[in-house]
Amino acid sequence: MMVGDQIYELCKELFPINRSLTGDGVRETLSILRRELPGLNIMSMPSGSRCFDWTVPKEWNVREAYIVCPNGEKICDFSLNNLHLVGYSIPIHETVDLEVLQEHLHSLPELPDAIPYVTSYYKEKWGFCISQQERDRLKPGSYTVHIDSKLEDGELNYAELLIKGDSDEEIFLSSYICHPSMGNNELSGPTVLTYLTKYIMSMANRRYSYRIVFIPETIGSIVYLSKNLVVMKERIVAGFNLSCVGDNNAYSFLPSRNENTLADRVALHVLQHFVDEFVEYSFADDRGSDERQYCAPGIDLPVCSIMRSKYAEYDEYHTSLDNLDFISAEGLDGAYQAYVKVFDVLESNFTYKINVLCEPQLGSRGLYPQESTKDTWGIVKNMMNICAYADGTKDLVAIADKISIPAWDLIDIVSKFKKSKLLEKV
Amino acid sequence: MMVGDQIYELCKELFPINRSLTGDGVRETLSILRRELPGLNIMSMPSGSRCFDWTVPKEWNVREAYIVCPNGEKICDFSLNNLHLVGYSIPIHETVDLEVLQEHLHSLPELPDAIPYVTSYYKEKWGFCISQQERDRLKPGSYTVHIDSKLEDGELNYAELLIKGDSDEEIFLSSYICHPSMGNNELSGPTVLTYLTKYIMSMANRRYSYRIVFIPETIGSIVYLSKNLVVMKERIVAGFNLSCVGDNNAYSFLPSRNENTLADRVALHVLQHFVDEFVEYSFADDRGSDERQYCAPGIDLPVCSIMRSKYAEYDEYHTSLDNLDFISAEGLDGAYQAYVKVFDVLESNFTYKINVLCEPQLGSRGLYPQESTKDTWGIVKNMMNICAYADGTKDLVAIADKISIPAWDLIDIVSKFKKSKLLEKV
Amino acid sequence: MMVGDQIYELCKELFPINRSLTGDGVRETLSILRRELPGLNIMSMPSGSRCFDWTVPKEWNVREAYIVCPNGEKICDFSLNNLHLVGYSIPIHETVDLEVLQEHLHSLPELPDAIPYVTSYYKEKWGFCISQQERDRLKPGSYTVHIDSKLEDGELNYAELLIKGDSDEEIFLSSYICHPSMGNNELSGPTVLTYLTKYIMSMANRRYSYRIVFIPETIGSIVYLSKNLVVMKERIVAGFNLSCVGDNNAYSFLPSRNENTLADRVALHVLQHFVDEFVEYSFADDRGSDERQYCAPGIDLPVCSIMRSKYAEYDEYHTSLDNLDFISAEGLDGAYQAYVKVFDVLESNFTYKINVLCEPQLGSRGLYPQESTKDTWGIVKNMMNICAYADGTKDLVAIADKISIPAWDLIDIVSKFKKSKLLEKV
Repeated sequence: MMVGDQIYELCKELFPINRSLTGDGVRETLSILRRELPGLNIMSMPSGSRCFDWTVPKEWNVREAYIVCPNGEKICDFSLNNLHLVGYSIPIHETVDLEVLQEHLHSLPELPDAIPYVTSYYKEKWGFCISQQERDRLKPGSYTVHIDSKLEDGELNYAELLIKGDSDEEIFLSSYICHPSMGNNELSGPTVLTYLTKYIMSMANRRYSYRIVFIPETIGSIVYLSKNLVVMKERIVAGFNLSCVGDNNAYSFLPSRNENTLADRVALHVLQHFVDEFVEYSFADDRGSDERQYCAPGIDLPVCSIMRSKYAEYDEYHTSLDNLDFISAEGLDGAYQAYVKVFDVLESNFTYKINVLCEPQLGSRGLYPQESTKDTWGIVKNMMNICAYADGTKDLVAIADKISIPAWDLIDIVSKFKKSKLLEKV
Repeated sequence: MMVGDQIYELCKELFPINRSLTGDGVRETLSILRRELPGLNIMSMPSGSRCFDWTVPKEWNVREAYIVCPNGEKICDFSLNNLHLVGYSIPIHETVDLEVLQEHLHSLPELPDAIPYVTSYYKEKWGFCISQQERDRLKPGSYTVHIDSKLEDGELNYAELLIKGDSDEEIFLSSYICHPSMGNNELSGPTVLTYLTKYIMSMANRRYSYRIVFIPETIGSIVYLSKNLVVMKERIVAGFNLSCVGDNNAYSFLPSRNENTLADRVALHVLQHFVDEFVEYSFADDRGSDERQYCAPGIDLPVCSIMRSKYAEYDEYHTSLDNLDFISAEGLDGAYQAYVKVFDVLESNFTYKINVLCEPQLGSRGLYPQESTKDTWGIVKNMMNICAYADGTKDLVAIADKISIPAWDLIDIVSKFKKSKLLEKV
Repeated sequence: MMVGDQIYELCKELFPINRSLTGDGVRETLSILRRELPGLNIMSMPSGSRCFDWTVPKEWNVREAYIVCPNGEKICDFSLNNLHLVGYSIPIHETVDLEVLQEHLHSLPELPDAIPYVTSYYKEKWGFCISQQERDRLKPGSYTVHIDSKLEDGELNYAELLIKGDSDEEIFLSSYICHPSMGNNELSGPTVLTYLTKYIMSMANRRYSYRIVFIPETIGSIVYLSKNLVVMKERIVAGFNLSCVGDNNAYSFLPSRNENTLADRVALHVLQHFVDEFVEYSFADDRGSDERQYCAPGIDLPVCSIMRSKYAEYDEYHTSLDNLDFISAEGLDGAYQAYVKVFDVLESNFTYKINVLCEPQLGSRGLYPQESTKDTWGIVKNMMNICAYADGTKDLVAIADKISIPAWDLIDIVSKFKKSKLLEKV
């Protein structure tokens, strides 16, 4: 069974919960993640807290919400699909004419059977999202709109897990838990990150420490940065924002603002060798998730993203069509495996220096393959290439790039070479 | 009315004057420019003065010059077109056979109705320029050649205008006033420069000082450099040689020798965003005007050129066909506007640093556009891009290059951001 | 007569000798080279000596070797073609069945009339090489194999010639003398190097010293490096490994490991301007001769190769078809002339600075060509280009690259300019 199958099951469990920047749905989601990841530390920041240029918003909870049509039919029922309610809608119970109602409805003429996803975090108002098909059927008359929501001081919740490695240097992984019932954007990010965290915890030897966070997007990363910036800048050597890692249609890459960090180099190396093709986006034109905060001037963390179909680049994005059918076990598994490769390469990515002048005698050192098979020649070639390029100035990824092979094909050889004292770290 | 119309009028006024390296025509031209630019300082250097490797030539003046044909017809009359006389022709009054005359005639078989432009500054001789058509009609017989010119010790004239700005750092602008009756090469350069100088004088706030010179080509720039090199090297941060800025057929760019100076970066940025297409020449292969002196080793000033049709690259070049019909108000205006953009960008091209960690809240700072129109989204995008890239290492042009928009679209935003203390210069 | 004709004659003389890593054939070859190059210093290293990771092998000599067929026919006779015997075959005199014999035979089904070249330096065994055609004709029965060889402690021989120049800085030239009767790979290398050495000795003024070695491949360069590494690293500014310089089918280039050394720059410059086209190989994928040792980490000498058809890249490689017909006087001459250009450029490749500010007056300095011919314009253009780019930061090759002409077209001009004090070395 693929790991992707397990990730997909977790998506199914989390899917119906009403997540937003704050509220019970976020806490319920984080509890389920803590069940999967014992030790996950759930934290909070009170509404009204000032974090850099931002203020933590009120907490939002919804008991029920729907519209009653002139004929008594109940539509836009939040209990059937939480996308029907505009996020952060204020409470209301009122009867209004269709014309007034129309000003509070959102639909997509170009996707007539999709319910769009709309929020209004920082401007208090109410609204419903509805498919264009259903909207077109509304008749003139009086509509009762009912939103039993609360918008009051409370807290913003997020979760953190620090996994110690040999070094204080950290790999940073972030995903967000503020999207209601959608699949690729976003349940794929936190669920793939959950299983990657399990993988990291299972590593026999961990060179790096790992800092893993589940936060609401934007305000959550700003809150987290405002509390942890000094230590993050000191320790983080590579970071990844996990979002849109669930469908099976594409692979894509969004670089960090500084573009040539260790994170970017390893992510690009993995994509170049692990997948057939991928779309390369630019930070300037295409950024849109928490890398906007992690890479902001003065923050300058080396955070990039490997994604499947990127947010804002597929038709189903931010609609009810980005559902459990849009993502798949295969899609989730592909992203999971790519990130596993990223971690494997990072953990092995030392700079090596050969201890022998001129080419070494692999045979007399017992390093030559015993059998001569079709693979042998390739292994010997890789061995000699490592000897040629391990000059104390190139890390493993740079050597692999130089000789155009995946870095993971070199990990075993380097390990043998180290044991036989042919190579040393510099 | 376009500024180009006014520039064209000035071209018409200056066109008939007989300019050369020296002489009354140069002084008359400079007087007219001083009428336009009060404060223009007309200067002189005596014949025989030694400047670097060069010697200032004698002063040359012409009263009249023509040829009388065997049949009494007067041809090659200098008073009808000053191109008929080879520049710096010595005086002569003599009757010669057609065969002898032919050795002193210049024409262009490939442009049969054009009078070529020929000079002999550093070798004393005489000659006439004639269209090939007219030359072909000459019959054997005795021709009286009459050149009433003077070649004697005098002075070389040029003009300088220093416009003070907030800083001692200077933008250097140079054009030449040694070409007789031609249009693109060259009356376009000094006339466009005259109107650019008016523009510079009209600037409300001037960050930079401007050093503007009108000189005879080559010997003039050498004379000027020999007198001002130390201060020029100290102060000039960007320079432009204005030549061939009059026709409406093309835009082109000639880089400085060092290629990546501030002047080159800004000129290229303007061309990339201001015109549909332009020809990019190379300093090694295509240089030919005063940038040869300004960029010489040891001089090393950052001088490049935005041009319309470049010298030596159009058929009419250095002939009577490069006349007032070849240039146009539109052509002159296009070059003028491009240079205006260059100055506007230079004046605003500071390096900025954002004062907030993570993305700022534009709304709460009153920076968000009030109305939501089609343009709004672009403005907000530009705002957020400035916030993302104003990291204290990139000047405005570098930020604009990074996000692929004209720097002038950012000037207003930067100004607002500075007022609200969101940005500061570094 | 081309120099290539003389080189070809030397190839013919050396061709029949049985060369290997060690033995009489190597010494005989080196003696003939010493006849051509008086002063060539023939040296030795005893079997069993330890050099870096390697051990000098036993000395190998062969008196005779052949196989007698069931019908009495003698085949694979070493005296007819020394490729018939696997290099370093141990002595044997035995009668074996065809099946047993087959395990010791080497042939090439894809080149049925070629005898392959096979060695077993570091594993003691015996074997014969035979054309596929002849092998297919072998009938079942008893075969007498007879190898009268000796494999015993002796010495490894190589030769060195140091030619003094004005400076202690050295150009390093290396070729190998361990291949038996083959042409391009390898008699072309040592024979072309012999005539290049004559050329170097004939230079009127030598700026650089030259270190020239003839060695067995791999073990020879390791032996030589183990004895001379410190002085080589101190002195060598550019080096070339001469191999596969004999046929007339192609030119090719193999860079050094560090890729942008003076040697690489000059070799590439020469190829770009001296030949119509050439194949550019990569060190990572295509290295295979002594550059593997010279460029190894910690050795790091700037050694690259200009070749004709590169080893392992032509069908006849390492077979009896790489013979005196495969190479030619024209092929040898082309490689010889390319290397002559390399040395000429290296010897003239100083960094120059012009002594005049602004463009110089070539005429008044007597530097302007007297006659005005079609060539004159090009010469004047080159002169002015040198003046424009001799800014004290670019060597001659960098200037020539900048203005896209062969560096050798600039050598005369630079020489004249230096005499007239217009240029000086920095």
